[in-house]
Amino acid sequence: MSKQKIVVSLGHKALGNTTNEQLDAVKHTAKALAQLVADGNQLTITHSNGNQVSMIHKAMTELRRVYIDYTPAPMCVCSAMSQGYVGYDIQNSLRAELIDRGISKPVSTILTQVTVDPYDEAFYEPTKVIGRYMSAEDAEVEVKKGNYVQEDPGKGFRRVVAAPKPLSIVEIDAIKALVDADQIVIACGGGGIPVIEQNHMLKGASAVIEKDAIAGKLAADLASDVLLILTGVDNVCTGFETANEKAIESMNLDQAKKYIEEGEFEAGTMLPKIEAAIEYLESKKDGKVIITSIEKAAEAMKGKAGTVITA
Amino acid sequence: MSKQKIVVSLGHKALGNTTNEQLDAVKHTAKALAQLVADGNQLTITHSNGNQVSMIHKAMTELRRVYIDYTPAPMCVCSAMSQGYVGYDIQNSLRAELIDRGISKPVSTILTQVTVDPYDEAFYEPTKVIGRYMSAEDAEVEVKKGNYVQEDPGKGFRRVVAAPKPLSIVEIDAIKALVDADQIVIACGGGGIPVIEQNHMLKGASAVIEKDAIAGKLAADLASDVLLILTGVDNVCTGFETANEKAIESMNLDQAKKYIEEGEFEAGTMLPKIEAAIEYLESKKDGKVIITSIEKAAEAMKGKAGTVITA
Repeated sequence: MSKQKIVVSLGHKALGNTTNEQLDAVKHTAKALAQLVADGNQLTITHSNGNQVSMIHKAMTELRRVYIDYTPAPMCVCSAMSQGYVGYDIQNSLRAELIDRGISKPVSTILTQVTVDPYDEAFYEPTKVIGRYMSAEDAEVEVKKGNYVQEDPGKGFRRVVAAPKPLSIVEIDAIKALVDADQIVIACGGGGIPVIEQNHMLKGASAVIEKDAIAGKLAADLASDVLLILTGVDNVCTGFETANEKAIESMNLDQAKKYIEEGEFEAGTMLPKIEAAIEYLESKKDGKVIITSIEKAAEAMKGKAGTVITA
Repeated sequence: MSKQKIVVSLGHKALGNTTNEQLDAVKHTAKALAQLVADGNQLTITHSNGNQVSMIHKAMTELRRVYIDYTPAPMCVCSAMSQGYVGYDIQNSLRAELIDRGISKPVSTILTQVTVDPYDEAFYEPTKVIGRYMSAEDAEVEVKKGNYVQEDPGKGFRRVVAAPKPLSIVEIDAIKALVDADQIVIACGGGGIPVIEQNHMLKGASAVIEKDAIAGKLAADLASDVLLILTGVDNVCTGFETANEKAIESMNLDQAKKYIEEGEFEAGTMLPKIEAAIEYLESKKDGKVIITSIEKAAEAMKGKAGTVITA
């Protein structure tokens, strides 16, 4: 198989929930990624950061309880920190797995910001639950600050933020330069740090960008041959988790859109993946989207597993 | 003046102490950096992270007090997070200042690891004080874990870690690719994440690399024309803070070494800067080191301020 440019999107399963879990999970993930490189593919990697940014945000909030004069770190800063944290573990594990296979190839992480539209309708109806559980009093403080909260009965309140559509990847030139130099890049971690352009400054937005949405955008911007979305299932299914569940081997854009209309794909899990696939394929008609599990990644690239979506 | 490749080393004054202070300090710093770019120079930027990594480490330690099952984040992870945090603010402010000047030039941050020798003698005599103040009991727990602590009478105990010599910059190929593409790169933040190579894995080390030491190494690796160290004073001085204080306008390596022998430069502040200058100039004989304040940076590049060191 000839060398293909792939954007790989890693879900939370690839990373685990805690610092120790992450070290193990990332090692497993890195084996699959290294195999893709050994098979001759060129990778640009993006990843989720839900658990990681929550942990960091929690820590930074707790710090305020201990040190009265501490200025809390806003979400955008926590997101930047999480890109450093997750990127560090991925680049390290992947580097080791490559060397084990006799491959000497630079792997690095580019801190990435992504602009969003301040008038994106997502801001009027926030859907992404983030951070620690709060008491009713703490929740009220958040609401007074202009933030949204949501009650999880019996557990407490959590903040909800918007998931706006990514407009542009601020550091795309840096990512392209590294891809052009045939290096492996980790970028747009956690969907990228969402920012709003105000005059010439980029201001962090109270938002989270869907990691699949940014993966689709990144694959389109790089004109990647393949967008490989690695998730918790081997295939996209119709009738998911019902008696009629049926794995989809391949579909085209029209079929994908029809399934969406029929409500086949769950919001927040499979739906954003299919939407990302559509976004990318509409910009790259000869592109290919593969959705499968980490374990099936190499097989799927050879056409022997997973769900393939083409225009 | 023709286009020069500069490695800029930013001290803690360039960054401030808290999240809000950092936003202001970085804006001021970015103006000076943007002026250097407007003057036709190409920049690679490295920075300290003492306050930032301490804040993050403190938060991650406090989190353990609240959540019993929380796995604490080791120093190397906190260091990775601090690179994300500081890089985010610098790249953002610098980008805005450049656009204000009509310059469209990519700025990005590369997460950087730096290998150190596990047998570096610095590990036997740790000197870098880090993290929060601890009680005597907490300090004892640290000692039992094999860590070093130091008492600051009346204030409590703090951890001390080694400051080993940097051996190699793991992500140097990525940094070079971006420099070659004429982009601005922020790299080796906080001296880089110190790692020790074990088999093929890089393990985070309980250490901090001097940011000036890594700046010298980075300037040598990139064969930069200039190593520009921006600090709290306009000039290197002899008789610093005495009645005989005298600003040095220029010196060569022999003079610099003589001053070191005579104890002119304070350990932990000016000495590592001069040592970094020597390290870089010994690898690049026609290179130039300039040590000055942020405010004098542009003037110093034109030969009108600061201390210049040449081979």
